[in-house]
Amino acid sequence: MPLSPEQLAEIEELRANPQPTLRAVSAGMEQHLYKPLEVLDHGFVRVIDYMGDDAAICQAARVSYGKGTKSVSNDEGLIRYLMRHWHSTPFEMCEIKLHVKLPVFVARQWIRHRTANVNEYSARYSILDREFYIPEPQHIAAQSVVNNQGRGEALTGEEAARVLEILKSDAARCYDHYEEMISQEDQQGLARELARMNLPANIYTQWYWKVDLHNLFHFLRLRADAHAQYEIRVYADAICNVVADWVPFAFKAFEDYRMGGATLSTKALDCVRRMLKGEDVSQENSGMSKGEWREFMGILEN
Amino acid sequence: MPLSPEQLAEIEELRANPQPTLRAVSAGMEQHLYKPLEVLDHGFVRVIDYMGDDAAICQAARVSYGKGTKSVSNDEGLIRYLMRHWHSTPFEMCEIKLHVKLPVFVARQWIRHRTANVNEYSARYSILDREFYIPEPQHIAAQSVVNNQGRGEALTGEEAARVLEILKSDAARCYDHYEEMISQEDQQGLARELARMNLPANIYTQWYWKVDLHNLFHFLRLRADAHAQYEIRVYADAICNVVADWVPFAFKAFEDYRMGGATLSTKALDCVRRMLKGEDVSQENSGMSKGEWREFMGILEN
Amino acid sequence: MPLSPEQLAEIEELRANPQPTLRAVSAGMEQHLYKPLEVLDHGFVRVIDYMGDDAAICQAARVSYGKGTKSVSNDEGLIRYLMRHWHSTPFEMCEIKLHVKLPVFVARQWIRHRTANVNEYSARYSILDREFYIPEPQHIAAQSVVNNQGRGEALTGEEAARVLEILKSDAARCYDHYEEMISQEDQQGLARELARMNLPANIYTQWYWKVDLHNLFHFLRLRADAHAQYEIRVYADAICNVVADWVPFAFKAFEDYRMGGATLSTKALDCVRRMLKGEDVSQENSGMSKGEWREFMGILEN
Amino acid sequence: MPLSPEQLAEIEELRANPQPTLRAVSAGMEQHLYKPLEVLDHGFVRVIDYMGDDAAICQAARVSYGKGTKSVSNDEGLIRYLMRHWHSTPFEMCEIKLHVKLPVFVARQWIRHRTANVNEYSARYSILDREFYIPEPQHIAAQSVVNNQGRGEALTGEEAARVLEILKSDAARCYDHYEEMISQEDQQGLARELARMNLPANIYTQWYWKVDLHNLFHFLRLRADAHAQYEIRVYADAICNVVADWVPFAFKAFEDYRMGGATLSTKALDCVRRMLKGEDVSQENSGMSKGEWREFMGILEN
Repeated sequence: MPLSPEQLAEIEELRANPQPTLRAVSAGMEQHLYKPLEVLDHGFVRVIDYMGDDAAICQAARVSYGKGTKSVSNDEGLIRYLMRHWHSTPFEMCEIKLHVKLPVFVARQWIRHRTANVNEYSARYSILDREFYIPEPQHIAAQSVVNNQGRGEALTGEEAARVLEILKSDAARCYDHYEEMISQEDQQGLARELARMNLPANIYTQWYWKVDLHNLFHFLRLRADAHAQYEIRVYADAICNVVADWVPFAFKAFEDYRMGGATLSTKALDCVRRMLKGEDVSQENSGMSKGEWREFMGILEN
Repeated sequence: MPLSPEQLAEIEELRANPQPTLRAVSAGMEQHLYKPLEVLDHGFVRVIDYMGDDAAICQAARVSYGKGTKSVSNDEGLIRYLMRHWHSTPFEMCEIKLHVKLPVFVARQWIRHRTANVNEYSARYSILDREFYIPEPQHIAAQSVVNNQGRGEALTGEEAARVLEILKSDAARCYDHYEEMISQEDQQGLARELARMNLPANIYTQWYWKVDLHNLFHFLRLRADAHAQYEIRVYADAICNVVADWVPFAFKAFEDYRMGGATLSTKALDCVRRMLKGEDVSQENSGMSKGEWREFMGILEN
Repeated sequence: MPLSPEQLAEIEELRANPQPTLRAVSAGMEQHLYKPLEVLDHGFVRVIDYMGDDAAICQAARVSYGKGTKSVSNDEGLIRYLMRHWHSTPFEMCEIKLHVKLPVFVARQWIRHRTANVNEYSARYSILDREFYIPEPQHIAAQSVVNNQGRGEALTGEEAARVLEILKSDAARCYDHYEEMISQEDQQGLARELARMNLPANIYTQWYWKVDLHNLFHFLRLRADAHAQYEIRVYADAICNVVADWVPFAFKAFEDYRMGGATLSTKALDCVRRMLKGEDVSQENSGMSKGEWREFMGILEN
Repeated sequence: MPLSPEQLAEIEELRANPQPTLRAVSAGMEQHLYKPLEVLDHGFVRVIDYMGDDAAICQAARVSYGKGTKSVSNDEGLIRYLMRHWHSTPFEMCEIKLHVKLPVFVARQWIRHRTANVNEYSARYSILDREFYIPEPQHIAAQSVVNNQGRGEALTGEEAARVLEILKSDAARCYDHYEEMISQEDQQGLARELARMNLPANIYTQWYWKVDLHNLFHFLRLRADAHAQYEIRVYADAICNVVADWVPFAFKAFEDYRMGGATLSTKALDCVRRMLKGEDVSQENSGMSKGEWREFMGILEN
């Protein structure tokens, strides 16, 4: 359970005091505010603030289109049109601020998305908590034999037990030593900015992360994808649930055009057209490499 | 008067319906929402939405500093510390969305600030209104004789009258021709995306502009500065008034450390130290060029 | 002809002095350096500098993949893999710097691409030249009747002649007045930062524009597209020719996966699968709106 | 010694083959290309590519200023003027690409600078080397007693020895276990994307990092500063040496106006003016807090 009683009390207090505002309000999002969605063994995602809703996307688009929008009769239709035609700026008009607790190796992937604002807990300034990500047995997976950057089946038996034991004991020992080094009892104590280098990458950190909806969708497309590492995907999945309640039209369009869609190359489109005319198309006469053809078949047979 | 009765009615309606929210609310900002602050002859700035307040800056900074912040006893002190030490990320945690109506030549300067989100009224899609910026007499200024990119005294008499007449008549004629070209009466009508090229740079456009507080301060430092062109400075000034009501501590720190401050070079600091020791320092023994020395004197004698 | 004899002499001089470098050199790009590619009636694009080549993309990708890349046997295969799987960071490792002369209304579209570096000729500081874009007769097009932000057939006869006459005479008159207002003969002269507001949007400006290859591809995908306005598309086309000579593998992959490809939605993919099974799919049973279906048919029948 | 004989041979080969180019060439930078500058115990910085030189900064600025620049008589003067007046876009016209090997905890600070392009060695895809940062004795420092995020004097005697022993043995053990877990001898082998979580933050990673000169100066101002953590400062210092050889005028201006300069607040400027008039100014009558006053005194007495 990641939150302490004090933190829970603080959340309840924050949620007990609605105030009037003249801004756009998303009823779905108000339900989420401040409440942690638990992720992994000690992590969470919680919404701290948001700006805008589905209507705000349309409002911004209509400035950009001015008087001519009557032909797009409703908000959902307009949002689907914008998503389909890669008009990204209206989606940038919504913003979300999250408080996230996550293992360092997940944070290192996450931070590669540069178009966002971040304030991370400082291990130069403060002492990190003794909290490490230890995977559940079903997620202790073997290296994939087909994908160099993926994982295969779960390990079992002794091998799994050994991995679990290593992760737990190394984390514990490293943290014990971290505490020992910074301790100021009967010694000066090592600088925190140095001592932290002894901590393994499964230790938890936390940050405030603020991003606009367009860039959030880009993050979600990559990180809620089946090829993303499981440990970041679960965060992306949690955020998807939040976004679905926040901007339901935009999220549905995102699911349809981005998450569930696929980009076909010139060659792949040509093959589809030939197939639809009844032609017998194979990798050999497709113009594609074996890898491309296999991915193309994966899309058609999905 | 830039807003029509319909627009005013819409604003009143928007302001008549407060809704409860659990988010941070800035009382000062709620007063501004939707109301246009008039700028120039047909322009305005109005706040459409905002995220965060002074406390949100501290909250984000404290995640980044964790348990160690007790020594900074209060929010204002922390905000001043952050501003003084160029800790920019906590200020990025506040966001503002403005609706701005402005002449095209001002928009062209404004858009150079890239770290913002923009949706502009599209003159490919829609027809621009017949509204042009015509300076008031006291702002019809001569080219500066000391600064190649500035202006000097106001023109007077016949020369001023002639300028005014040119600006008015050319704008009117160009707009008449714009309308003629796109008209579909008894002719096909030129494409709007082409016809717009006949319109001069003092025509008004409008956009939604969304930016975080750190980048807004950067914009304001450059554009509310005495060296900025008057026609963009008046927009920056209007926004300053809004920000002062939104995040009063942050704005005060910004005024003190950025707007009213100055950066001294190594050489300038050295001169100050020598002067304070009673030494007689002149341009000749300062190590500075004449231009630098003049600017340095400007700072000391301000 | 956009370049003066002096400028041509300068280009020849720049091209006459090769110097040795240890950096990656693209032979195709060296042919382009400094030479203007003419665009529209007075515009041009010319390459001022570049960084990297196809091999540099692979080199960066291989750091990111380390020792494991042996299975991707060659540079072209790796580049196609990266493009297909939206691995954008290796393409960011190439950079290009262009000098572009272009009408202001084109510059206003272009600048919306924020992830680039720009230095524009300053009309506050300097005097703009008397050069305006006047479309050739076949590009004086009517407003599209099916697309609110597009153009239809070329205008003909008297209407076309009238448009041409208006564009020419308004540009000439506005420029005459611009010169009159800033003139310092027998008067003070209006500030240049004010006088420029009288100039229509078809006047030419120029800038240095520097961008990485990933963001350039994004620009080209949108602006070399058939739906882009003709006057910016010709610039994008000129740049495509340059890029094809600079990074031939990357450009070919871009053409195949981006320019000639298409993104199909969940519903569209489902329809393709049903069609390939012999099912009779129509708009009514597709789950798509009429607009989506029409676009989908356009892709299949292309 | 961070580079293997194979790598050194590769560097020699790269440096043995100069090719002609028509681009701007910086003689100072050609000397650095590909050669590793050693940093810390296993790290390095090496220049892979660069674009532009001092002249390129001026060339871009002169487009932006057009015909009017004759008054700024030379390149160095113009560069100093641009730096002094915060004209940042001309400096963005130069670009550098570095290959950096650095401990993960340093990489985590470094990556917070978002306006750069990065390709990092992937520990999902590849196996990390057994290389850890172990500080030299004089850098094993105590926590600062005056600065919560700094370090004080070096530890000595038994405490220092204990720290050194912990860092070495924990790193070795964690890496042994990492190897054991991913080993495919007599077992399946844990996925690399999971096994890496056992590695402490002093393990080395590497990346290609590409950035423009303006943003590099921003990085250097913060990271070559005396308050930066030693382990990132040594990288910034190494890069400073490179930049000084690449764009000597720009670097000198940067040193004078940024690194050696200081920003004074409204209150601080007011105090300086009062002091120069002979007034006796103290913290009590300065309007500053004690912290601000202490920092102000630090600047004046430097």
